[in-house]
Formats: sequence, C-alpha cells, structure tokens
Amino acid sequence: MRILGIDPGYAIVGYGIVDTNGYNFSVVGYGAITTSANLPFSQRLKYIYDDMLTVIDKYHPEELSIERLYFNTNTTTAIDVAQARGVIILAAQSKGVRINEYTPLQVKQAVTGYGKAEKRQVMEMIKSLLKLKAVPKPDDTADALALALCHGHFAGSSVSKIIRGEQNK
Amino acid sequence: MRILGIDPGYAIVGYGIVDTNGYNFSVVGYGAITTSANLPFSQRLKYIYDDMLTVIDKYHPEELSIERLYFNTNTTTAIDVAQARGVIILAAQSKGVRINEYTPLQVKQAVTGYGKAEKRQVMEMIKSLLKLKAVPKPDDTADALALALCHGHFAGSSVSKIIRGEQNK
Repeated sequence: MRILGIDPGYAIVGYGIVDTNGYNFSVVGYGAITTSANLPFSQRLKYIYDDMLTVIDKYHPEELSIERLYFNTNTTTAIDVAQARGVIILAAQSKGVRINEYTPLQVKQAVTGYGKAEKRQVMEMIKSLLKLKAVPKPDDTADALALALCHGHFAGSSVSKIIRGEQNK
Repeated sequence: MRILGIDPGYAIVGYGIVDTNGYNFSVVGYGAITTSANLPFSQRLKYIYDDMLTVIDKYHPEELSIERLYFNTNTTTAIDVAQARGVIILAAQSKGVRINEYTPLQVKQAVTGYGKAEKRQVMEMIKSLLKLKAVPKPDDTADALALALCHGHFAGSSVSKIIRGEQNK
C-alpha cells in the first residue's frame, strides 16, 4: 500500500510518500509545496492544487493521510489553512485517492506509542522507522511522513484484524 | 460588468449572477448548488467544484463576490465551510474570474444603506433593486444576489471616482 501523508497549510504543505505492507515501511519521496506571501490568496490555492495533482501523478498513492483541523488560537490563519485543506482534499478526490484523517494525538500514538509524546520524539521515531540519515526539513515534511506512518499503522492493524477474522465492521 | 455572487457553504452554495453598468442592475440567473449529507465530505467538495466550473462556463462572469468568513460559534461547521470556500475560490481562480470578498456588514450597508439592517430588509431590497416578483429561495440564493449587488455597488463607486479623477491609488 502506498500512502501520501499531508501536513496541510497555505504557506507550506508538507508531503511524504511511504510504502508499507502493514509491518515494514519505506520512504518513496517527500518534500514541501510552498507558496509566496506576496501572491493573492486565490493564486496560492491554485498553486497548491496544481502541485498536489503533480505529486499524485508522480507517485500514484492509493491512500491520503491528512491531519484533521481544530481551531483554537489564531482563527484567521485557521480559516486559510482550512481553505487550503479543501483544495488538497479536492485534488486527492479528483485522482481517486482514498482520504483518511487523523488527529495529532493519533499520529503521536501511532508513531511513538504515546499520545502526549513531544515533537522531538516524534521526529526521532520517523527518522528511525524510515531509516533516514536525518530528520527531514522543514518540520512540515517530517509531520507529513508521520501522518503517512500513522495511516500505515492503523490500516495495517485493520488488515491484520481482517486476516485474523477479528474485524467486525 | 458581470458579477457572480456566492454565499459559501458545503450543503448549499447560493449563487446569483448580476449585470451592472455601475448604476443599474439586472439579474442574469441564480440558484443553489446542493450536496447530500449522505456523501463523503471529499465527494461533496468535488461536486461543488465541478458545479462551480459549470456555472462559470455558463454565465462567464468577470468578477466573483464572495462572503468573507468569520468564526464564532460552531467551529466544526466553520472548518467545513472554509474548506468548501477554498474549492469555490479555486474554481474562480482557474477560470480567470477576479475574486472580491465582503463582510456581512458591507453587504447590508451596500444593499440597504444601513450596516445593521435586518435580514428581512436586505431580502426586500434585493427584490426591489433587481425587480424580482418574489425574494429568491433558498435564502442562500438571495444572499448570493446581495453579494453580487454589494460588489457592483463598491466597484461602481471606484469606477465613478476614477472617471471623476478622485481615485488616489
């Protein structure tokens, strides 16, 4: 199974592509889509959409794993992140990629086994699990790989359960 | 100038197309894009995007006038409205339609001359200004026409100022 992890944003969209058989993980590629603050917001949305289509066409992921959004402090930023997330999901939907959402807590739980893990621990686990020489930069890219790992973990569990006849729904 | 007014949403997207010379207004068309709550959210976004492209291809508006979003009460709904608004703006950007945003206060001010006007007054003014036999339904459609009128009003003012040499920027 090939998973595209996405850390949504409008200035930086981190992406990471991971292959998994449910047990082992290998990195296929990662990077970040960036847009300039000098551009009109609508143009930034268009660049994000176009670049998402390019990433999907290049790597052919079967599954998207994207962070679920919550609002807390800066709601103006949050509106714009949500608008960007809309076009990211649209790109995946247009290309027939299945869409999965996870909370930051689920990601930490899946990657480190501990929902309250610190960011540094998550980063080190990504490096270790994916056998990377260094933690990918920017952080958005590492976060995207964590999302891909998280879905591999949860989807892998489901697959194992189905094989073992434990899946009820 | 042909203006496409949009009241953004994910269950109902109201739209209204208005022609104006800066002084007079005439309705070209209006309606609502609706999506079923039974569908996955990503599919709803795709339908909104596709229908927006269809509306733009049918009416060829030069300008989009869309409500600016604010968050107050239901943030879960607000996230989804913002995601839908992202794909609406993307559709306009993709088709070369200029994007303009207005607050509810600006819309009320433009349509009734009073920023604290009640919804009913706004609806009656739309009916009157556009010479309609009844207030369009659903409300989202009437709101979309109000947004189109609002942009016609503000854009018209700019044009007048430029003609009179009063525009400084």
